[in-house]
Order: sequence, then structure tokens, then C-alpha cells
Amino acid sequence: MGDLLGVAVLGAGHMGADHIRRLEQVVSGARVVAVADPDVERAKDAVAGLTGVAVHTDPEAALGAPGVEAVLIASPGPAHEEALLAAFARHLPVLCEKPMVPDSTGALRVMEAEARLGRRLAQIGFMRRYDAEYQRLKILLDGGGLGRPLMLHCTHRNVSSPPGFTSAMLVNSSVSHEIDAARWLLGQELTAVTVLRPTPSSGAPAGLLDPQFVLFETDRGALVDVEVFVNCGFGYQVRCEAVCEKGSARIGDEHTMVVTAGGGAREEVAQDYLVRFAAAYDREVQSWVDAARRGEVGGPSAWDGYAASVVAEAGVRALETGGRTTVEPAPRPDLYGAGVSR
Amino acid sequence: MGDLLGVAVLGAGHMGADHIRRLEQVVSGARVVAVADPDVERAKDAVAGLTGVAVHTDPEAALGAPGVEAVLIASPGPAHEEALLAAFARHLPVLCEKPMVPDSTGALRVMEAEARLGRRLAQIGFMRRYDAEYQRLKILLDGGGLGRPLMLHCTHRNVSSPPGFTSAMLVNSSVSHEIDAARWLLGQELTAVTVLRPTPSSGAPAGLLDPQFVLFETDRGALVDVEVFVNCGFGYQVRCEAVCEKGSARIGDEHTMVVTAGGGAREEVAQDYLVRFAAAYDREVQSWVDAARRGEVGGPSAWDGYAASVVAEAGVRALETGGRTTVEPAPRPDLYGAGVSR
Amino acid sequence: MGDLLGVAVLGAGHMGADHIRRLEQVVSGARVVAVADPDVERAKDAVAGLTGVAVHTDPEAALGAPGVEAVLIASPGPAHEEALLAAFARHLPVLCEKPMVPDSTGALRVMEAEARLGRRLAQIGFMRRYDAEYQRLKILLDGGGLGRPLMLHCTHRNVSSPPGFTSAMLVNSSVSHEIDAARWLLGQELTAVTVLRPTPSSGAPAGLLDPQFVLFETDRGALVDVEVFVNCGFGYQVRCEAVCEKGSARIGDEHTMVVTAGGGAREEVAQDYLVRFAAAYDREVQSWVDAARRGEVGGPSAWDGYAASVVAEAGVRALETGGRTTVEPAPRPDLYGAGVSR
Amino acid sequence: MGDLLGVAVLGAGHMGADHIRRLEQVVSGARVVAVADPDVERAKDAVAGLTGVAVHTDPEAALGAPGVEAVLIASPGPAHEEALLAAFARHLPVLCEKPMVPDSTGALRVMEAEARLGRRLAQIGFMRRYDAEYQRLKILLDGGGLGRPLMLHCTHRNVSSPPGFTSAMLVNSSVSHEIDAARWLLGQELTAVTVLRPTPSSGAPAGLLDPQFVLFETDRGALVDVEVFVNCGFGYQVRCEAVCEKGSARIGDEHTMVVTAGGGAREEVAQDYLVRFAAAYDREVQSWVDAARRGEVGGPSAWDGYAASVVAEAGVRALETGGRTTVEPAPRPDLYGAGVSR
Repeated sequence: MGDLLGVAVLGAGHMGADHIRRLEQVVSGARVVAVADPDVERAKDAVAGLTGVAVHTDPEAALGAPGVEAVLIASPGPAHEEALLAAFARHLPVLCEKPMVPDSTGALRVMEAEARLGRRLAQIGFMRRYDAEYQRLKILLDGGGLGRPLMLHCTHRNVSSPPGFTSAMLVNSSVSHEIDAARWLLGQELTAVTVLRPTPSSGAPAGLLDPQFVLFETDRGALVDVEVFVNCGFGYQVRCEAVCEKGSARIGDEHTMVVTAGGGAREEVAQDYLVRFAAAYDREVQSWVDAARRGEVGGPSAWDGYAASVVAEAGVRALETGGRTTVEPAPRPDLYGAGVSR
Repeated sequence: MGDLLGVAVLGAGHMGADHIRRLEQVVSGARVVAVADPDVERAKDAVAGLTGVAVHTDPEAALGAPGVEAVLIASPGPAHEEALLAAFARHLPVLCEKPMVPDSTGALRVMEAEARLGRRLAQIGFMRRYDAEYQRLKILLDGGGLGRPLMLHCTHRNVSSPPGFTSAMLVNSSVSHEIDAARWLLGQELTAVTVLRPTPSSGAPAGLLDPQFVLFETDRGALVDVEVFVNCGFGYQVRCEAVCEKGSARIGDEHTMVVTAGGGAREEVAQDYLVRFAAAYDREVQSWVDAARRGEVGGPSAWDGYAASVVAEAGVRALETGGRTTVEPAPRPDLYGAGVSR
Repeated sequence: MGDLLGVAVLGAGHMGADHIRRLEQVVSGARVVAVADPDVERAKDAVAGLTGVAVHTDPEAALGAPGVEAVLIASPGPAHEEALLAAFARHLPVLCEKPMVPDSTGALRVMEAEARLGRRLAQIGFMRRYDAEYQRLKILLDGGGLGRPLMLHCTHRNVSSPPGFTSAMLVNSSVSHEIDAARWLLGQELTAVTVLRPTPSSGAPAGLLDPQFVLFETDRGALVDVEVFVNCGFGYQVRCEAVCEKGSARIGDEHTMVVTAGGGAREEVAQDYLVRFAAAYDREVQSWVDAARRGEVGGPSAWDGYAASVVAEAGVRALETGGRTTVEPAPRPDLYGAGVSR
Repeated sequence: MGDLLGVAVLGAGHMGADHIRRLEQVVSGARVVAVADPDVERAKDAVAGLTGVAVHTDPEAALGAPGVEAVLIASPGPAHEEALLAAFARHLPVLCEKPMVPDSTGALRVMEAEARLGRRLAQIGFMRRYDAEYQRLKILLDGGGLGRPLMLHCTHRNVSSPPGFTSAMLVNSSVSHEIDAARWLLGQELTAVTVLRPTPSSGAPAGLLDPQFVLFETDRGALVDVEVFVNCGFGYQVRCEAVCEKGSARIGDEHTMVVTAGGGAREEVAQDYLVRFAAAYDREVQSWVDAARRGEVGGPSAWDGYAASVVAEAGVRALETGGRTTVEPAPRPDLYGAGVSR
């Protein structure tokens, strides 16, 4: 039926398969019409039970399949730039998982390509902007009742890091969420970064600098600090306290059921981001589908993807040097307006 | 497209319009193909912007519209019995808002009609069973780690009652949610009820016995107490604490953002049930659509709807007499198995 | 030194020894000058290391020891009446642990003896009135900002009951604290009581009706419900929620340190009343010493002790009969004024 | 009576008067026998109603008054060094309010004087070590169940700063509490400090750098960050989260009564340190009196007072330069053992 948005999904791994399930079973108004993955068996598994889905190994072929009206990119980061440019060439709205592109040079090329089109086609997958708690905090800060934000205190903890996770990835993969969230919440750009390295936890793999404590300064004098601890062992915790001139607001300690037994009162802590941010992913994709059906594109832009890249690269340099590093972004194309996109 | 479940919605008032929006914009796999309301303009408003929807004043005509594969009943309670029987006659799966039928005699007729069909077609709209907190509590209790449940302490508070709300409605409309939730959480039937009437709040309309304190006994010796206070003035609060042999568990104090300002730390309390239970309604309807597309019916059954009626009627007698009233249900048809449906 | 109040302590058991420690090491302005216990070795142990303390087996002899200016009664309940009357005869201010006297007939005699003296000498050990949380709640209710109190929901849980604890003692020993606290918080007398008996927990000793659910009605139409569960296994929990016309206030979920580890966020629950109410005991005794040094007597009166007795006896009858039992107190002597003493 | 410890109090201002009240009315085992203040009327007011107290303008005269067995120093900081040395000369145990001495050079002289005596006489008034929550956290960390501490996240907020409060005082007066608390909790010395200065709040007096964000490094590689915000407007908040290898623990969000009204659930935040730390002050002084009566001295030592001075001075330099500043303490005299005193 023409009413349903036909989506091509690139990448049928963990994230891609989850988005296929989401598009088919959770959100309203879309259906998957094509999928591409170098591993064709994996792609077939991901669409098992669905009818009318073209399965390809080549992303370009998937984009050209009948009925494709929009693209969701969930392939590995290095494949994103080519996929984004191909979607732009076909004028297809695209939802691209983060990181937009692994390095800021590639991110710049993507942004410039979109700027040349003269209209936005890409939404970047910074899904925290769709989390109910973050949205409540954003509304509170924008309302101004607490005065100007002075500091954000952030915590980002994972139970354990996946194999191959490097010290730099604490900054450019984990903290990249806080980079975008801070820019969005404050409506300010991050201009300098310092990384402190306490003695690593014995729970971290040998050689991994974990935890780290990352400090960002903004173009209007606010301070953002982030504890990032990816082998904390006990849960997935994402918290943010905004300290303002007239009060503070804290999110991320959400509790639900309290069980009292064995001498204590206990609340569960989510074990991974798919639990903690499940509703945010749903809302993100629904929002993208709704916009695409109206012929629109919203949410985090390619500029936001680029900005996150540039700040994260400065963060990695700060980690390596131990000193304060300034952030030096390229000028922002007119397409993305002034200020942080909302 | 044949894949989407075609739904007829009976009733285009507040609840019906909300379900139409939900079927079209939120849940996956369904579309509205017919709507019926005595007020044809209201029905047209509720489907504005949708195409291919047959609009009728007569429910029977809507059920017979092309493409109807399932029925959602959101008309006023007195219209439910006829609508349910009409859906049964056409062998259509049906989601019926609570109360199933206003009185237990009618509820009995509906249940017997379905029993004669020999298969379930009706799911009753006790949406708390789809709330994430209630589900967590149910899983905890069923797991048995806390031992046998001994007592449920429940709170049901509304900001204010609508015009025309009577003292009996605190029991048979408000508390009917707790009646079903208690039966479901405990897997036990309620066998007696007592209603205590403290001096009414000066915030309640003259003559309304508000608050009330309702006590249920179960067939296995558990106790369920409910504070129902429909003019509490400050918010919509639904809480439940299950006290078990080895511990207790409490839901309904969910908190999210904590704002510290002006000498206090403050969390918002939801103002109405559409906010507090928004996700539960979504999950309920998604679950019903998914089952219908598989040719199945699940969730709360006509027996649950009947049981809630019988208990609520005993509650109203207890309110009137001030004494303890036993619950005397008809035998349960085999179709509904033993125990409380899950 | 004349400045220090000379106290005779009657009873050197668990409670008496703790009060001796409190008088000597915690509160300001008092010293123990005499102690009496039938078990003279126990008495000597309780004052080991102190000098100038007369040790007796006979309470009367202790009251007559040199320097005695006040009496603290911590002997078993059956010895209280004689001790109180002896203190009255000597015009000594007295702090008497609860229960004032085991039965209301004896309590009446004590009260009438004090009334004949024409001035108050006795303060009864309802120490919850000295707990910071209860005091905060009392101030809030008296302030009137939340409007009239409509209901109190109370919880009283112990880890386990001592040997020999009977079903009646859940009402006349455990719940007696709630009886006094409710009278004091509301400033209302309790006029009827009903006791519900859910199936006992398998964690309770055979034959003990535990938990129980006790309902009190007041002379101004408020309702007080108490879950009493003395073998809950997990902690000592005393909670109270006051539901008023314009809001509710809850105490007893006090939390302090939150430890996040092993997949959950956890707060400890106190394991016994000496931990939960340690500061209340200190404040109670300090307050009594301060008043005695000023020649005054305050706090809960013999009328409060008598009222608790009468209500508890009605509660035990209600437990036995399963029905609603009214409370029939003797008239209140003028000495105790009108209303609940504060 | 010889049993009561005779205390001379130096300084009868806000803090001194409060300690006189505490010694006389709250703690057990002490009495005030002498008081000194340059303003003799203020001294007389502070001891009004007490008998047998010698009132002097000269501290030395107060120390020599009959019955003086211990000294409590609550005079302004610049008077502390002379008072401490005078107490040392008389071999009197002394409780000295913080800061021990305004600068580290003077603190060094005091410490060396005590070291020459060969035994401890001074306890420094870092009262957080006597707060129940800090003590619980200390016990938890020392127990080792959460593994090695990696980071402390601290918050120190005041409603407003007193007149004359300077940017340096945020570090050397406010944060000095966190300096001692961090050393004590971790059992580690602070070796470097960096101070970040976000744009000041418009709620702060012109020219005051408020808030500040202070980072300490320790000799075993832990990190301590402190938000200090002395014009936050809404309350006195002191919080500390210890992040360890296997879990985290947080104190300072203590809540008691929860009031639900007007659309929110609200808990009060203490407005000043005398409320938040009232019990800690009581316990500190009781502990000091108890030790003095046993002929002992415990608690925070002159080394702790000196260490706080040295770190605070490095912090002020870090504030001025904007860079990282190392802490260079003098060697520790043998009297103070190894490690942070406990």
C-alpha cells in the first residue's frame, strides 16, 4: 500500500536487524522493501518471515530496488560516507546511525555534499534527543525558569567494553553521545577539551585507560564534565545533572519498582543501552518515518554529525597529550543555520 | 495492503478518537477502515485526513464495511453488549474498552455467548496489565522469590472527578481497575468486600463519598486494600505495594527528572491517566493487533470482564450497607479454563 | 554537683541498661544515683564503672536513696503500676516506658492517682513523638497547609518476633505505638477498631496470626489503617502516610547512602528499633531531663497511656471476634485538659 | 563535680556560642568553666544563665581559670595559632575549629610545636568525619567490597555567600572541607590541583568567580572533583559519590518526608550547615569530651590541619594561574604516623 514508507536498510548486523524489527513490528507507517549486507545469509535471516523484500549484497542495488523511498544506514562506520553520498544522489531521506563518518575529514565531505544539494536529507542517529528524560530536561532548560546553565555533570557507564575497545574509543565512541547531548541541551558549541586519567580500574582490560574524566568548555563559558567508565561492572548508567543559576535538574536515576528484601531496598539498574534507550530508538525512528512521509527531514543534522567528529578528535588528542586541546571546526554551511540544530 | 489489519472502531468520542490516532500513527500493522458514531460529524472529525474509511452512524453497518477484520469498541458502556454480540456473530476479534458491560447480568450473557462459540474473540481493555511497572511486579510475584503474596496496598487518586460522578462509581468505575489488577497479580479471585467511608474531603463535590477505603478478601486468604480518592487535587497517582512472605515490592512512585530549586527537590506527578498509562495503551493495542493478525485472541477475557462486574456490584452493596459483602459469581465456563486468565 | 538531675532507674534489663548508658554518656544534665533490679548482679553490671550509684533489689529502696530527684521506670510492665504510685507518693517526676500499665483497669488507677495529686508527674515512653520525621509530619499537619487529614496509612514491620509473642501482642504491643502516634498526629481519639487477618506468613511461628491489618476510626471521621507484620524477615520498617484534603505526606522511607553494584541500586533498611529510633530515644530522655530540671513535666501523659490501653484492649477483642469493636474509655480527668495532649 | 570536664571556650561569636550551648545542654560529661572574647558583653550573653563561669577578654586568662581541663577554640582564624600554642604550653587537650591556622606557614609552626611535645593535644574541627553518612561511606570504602576507589564526585553548594567572600575563599574556606573529607575517605594525600572557572552565575556578587570546579589528583592516582557553588540560591547541599572498581556509593541526597501536593512530590533541602550537620557537630564534641575525660586525644590531627592548608594554598594558586599546580608539603613528623590519620 502506497501509504507505507518503503525503506531500504543497509547493514543487517545487530543494529540493522533491530531496526528492521522496529520498522516492521513497532513503528507505524513504514515497511522494509530492501536490505543490503555483504553477508547475504545474515540479510536473509534479518528479513525472515517478511514478504516483498529485495535482498542484496550491494548497497547501491538495495537503494535502487523497487519501492525504496528512504534509507536507514546501519552498516559499519567506514561504509557510511559512500552510502550517504549514494542516498543524496537519489534524493532519498536517510537516517544514519552514529558515528556519521569515522573521521572529521569524511564528515566534512558529507556535510558539503548535502550543502551543495541545498536541502537536508540526512538525520544522524543521536537517539538521546528522543529520550523522554533528556527531552524533559531540554524543555526545562529552554524554558529558562532555572536561569542560565553553568555546568553539566555527566556519567556514562557500561558493564564492560567489547573486545578491541581502545582508550581513544572511550572518547570518540562512548563520549560522542555526551558531546551531542551537551551541544543540544545547552545550544552551545564545545570549544576545548581536557581528559584526565585516573589509575585504571583493575576490572578494565590491561592497557585500557578506563575510567576517564573528560572536561569540555563551551563558547559561552559553560563547563561539561563526563565520567566515562566502560567496565564498571554493575550496569549501564547514563546520568546528567544540569546546574543552573537558580537550581539544578538531574536525569538518569529513573526508578520504577522498589523491592525491599534481605535487609535492603533495591532498584534494578538497566544492563545495556537497548534497554535504557529502547523507547528513544522507537521514537527516533517513528519521528523519522513520519517526517519522511510528509517529505521532510528533521532531527540531528550532518552539521551535528560533523561537530561531534571534530570535538571527539580534539578529545583524543587531549587524551594523548594530557593537556587542554582547543576544537577547530570548519565554518558551518548556511544550510545548517546558526546555533545548534534542535 | 492485505498485511494491515482492517479495524472498525465503534465510538468516536474521547477514547475512540484516541484509539483511531493510535491505530493509524503509533502501532504497527493496522489501519482504520470503518468508524461508527451516532454523531456523524464527530466520527468524520476523528478520521479527518485518513482515506478509505467508511463512516457510519450504525455500528452494524460499520462491522459490515469492506475490509473489516477486527473491531475496537470504544462506545459508551450501555452499547457494548449489542456490539460484542454483533462482533461474535461475524466471528471478528474484538478489543472492548472497560467496563465490558455495565452490569453483571449483561456481562454473563456476553460471556455465555462467547462460550457457545467455543473460542475466544473478546479482549477486555484492562490496560494496566500492559503497563511496564505492573508487568515487572507480575513477573516478580510469579517468580516466587518473595514467597506468597499476603497483602496488596493500593492507591488510586485522581485530580478531580467529572460531573455526575457518584459515590458508587468510585467502586464500580475507579476501583474496577484495581479489581482486575489484583485478580491478575495474585492469580486469585476476590470473595468478599468491605467499604469504609471516612469523612469526605471538602475538596469533593457535596454528597460524594470521597475518599473511600475498600477492602477485598481473596479465595486464598490474601487481603487487598484500596484507597480511592478521586478529588485529591494534586495528581493522578496509581500505586501498588505487594507484601509477601519474604519481602515487599512497590510500583507507582516512578520518578524521572529531579529538579532542585527554591529550597526543595521536586519531581512531577502525572496529571491524568492518558499520561501515566500512555505506553500501556499503546502496548495493549499493539498486542491485540499482533494477535489478530496471527488469528489469535489473548489478554483479559470476557470472564475477567464478568468477574470485575460481579465484584464491583458486591462493592457497591458494601458501600451502601457499610458491612462486609460476599461475592457470588456464576460458574466459570470451560472456555476460560481454571484460575485467573493471564 | 547539684546541677545534675539525680535519677533512679528501675529495671536493669535491656531497656534499663540502655537508658543508664544514655543518661550517663549521651544526654546532658543528669546522672544515675540509684538503680533497682530483682537480679542484683544485672543491676551491678549495668552501672559498672560508675561511682556513687546505690544498687537495690527493692524499687522502693532505690526511690529513697540519697540524691534521687527523678525516676525512670524500665522494669517489666506488671511492675509499673506500683512503681508509678510510689513515685507519685514521693512527688518525683517519672519517665515510664510503655506500656504504662498492662491493662486499662490498672492504667485507670494510675491516672486517677495522678489526677488526685492535681499535677502531672508522669511522662509515658511513646518515643515516636520525639522522632525527627514524626515531628516534621506533626508540624506539617498542624500547619494546615494540606487541609484536614482524612486517612493515615501505617506500616509496622519487624524482622522477627521474640519467643512467646502472641497474636494479641501484635495489637497491644506492636500497634500500641501506632495508636499513640495516630492520636497525637491527628489530635483525635480512636473510637472503633476492626482487625483483618490474612492467611499467616509461612515465616511466622505456627499459630501466630501474622501479619494483621488493623483499622481504626476516629471521633472526627478519619481512618487509620496499620499493616503490622512482625516476622517480615527483611527489616524494621515504620512508615506513615497522611492523606489530607490537599496533598499527602509520607515518612519512614528515609534513605541515606545509595550503593550501586551488582546490577542494582540499594539502600539499607534498619534492622531494629534501637537503630531506627536511636535519636528519638535520646531526644525523649533529654527532653524529660530538661523539663525535670525546670520543675516541669511534659510529653505523653498518663491519659495517653490509658487511652492506648483502652484502644488496644478493644483491638484485641476485635481480633478475637473478627468484627468491629467500639472503644469505651472512662471520662478524662480535668488534669489532662481537652483534646489529645501534645 | 569532678566528673564533668571543665572546658574553656575561646571566642563567643556565632560558633562559640553554639558550642557553649552544646557543651551545656546537649553533650554529656562537660561543663563550661571559662570563656574569653574581646567583646566582654558578647561573652556574658553567651553564658547567661550559667553559674560558675569565669568571663575574660584575654584568652590566656581563661586558660588559667580554675577548673579548666580542656580548651575549645572558636575564635577567628588569625587568633588560633597563639591559642593553640598556649594550650600546648599548659598541656591541655584542645578542639580547634577549622581552619586550624589561616596559612600553611603558621600551621607548620603549630604542628612542629606539638611534635616537640611528643604527644597529640589538638583535634581539628573537620566535623564531616562525624557525620553519619560520611561515616557509613568511610566504612564501606574501608571494607573493600567495592574495590579500590577511582574517583570522588563532590558537590558543595550554599544558598548565598556572606559579605566579603572572595574567589579564593571558595577554595580555601568552602572546599577545605572536601580536601579533608577526600583525604580521610580515600586515605590518600592530594598531590595536584586544577581549578576551572565557568562563567559566573548572575546570582553571585559582581567579581566573585562562583561557581568553580576544582580537580584534585592523589598520590595513588585517584581523582577528586568538586563543584563549589556558594550562591546557588536554593539550599545547602553537600554530596559525595565514590566511584570504585566494582560499584559506586552516593551520600548527601538524604531524604526524609515526601510531600505530594500541587502536581509534584517534594522533599525539603536543608538551608544551612547547622541544620545539615547538626548531629555531626554534637557527635564531634561528645567524642572529644569523652576522649579528654579518658586522657586521650583523637580525630583529625594538626597534620590534617596542615595538610588542608597546603592543599588549599595550592588550590588558590591554581585558581589564579588557571593551570595545574602541584602540592608541596613539608615532611610529616613521626608523631602523626604514616598515612592519613583516621
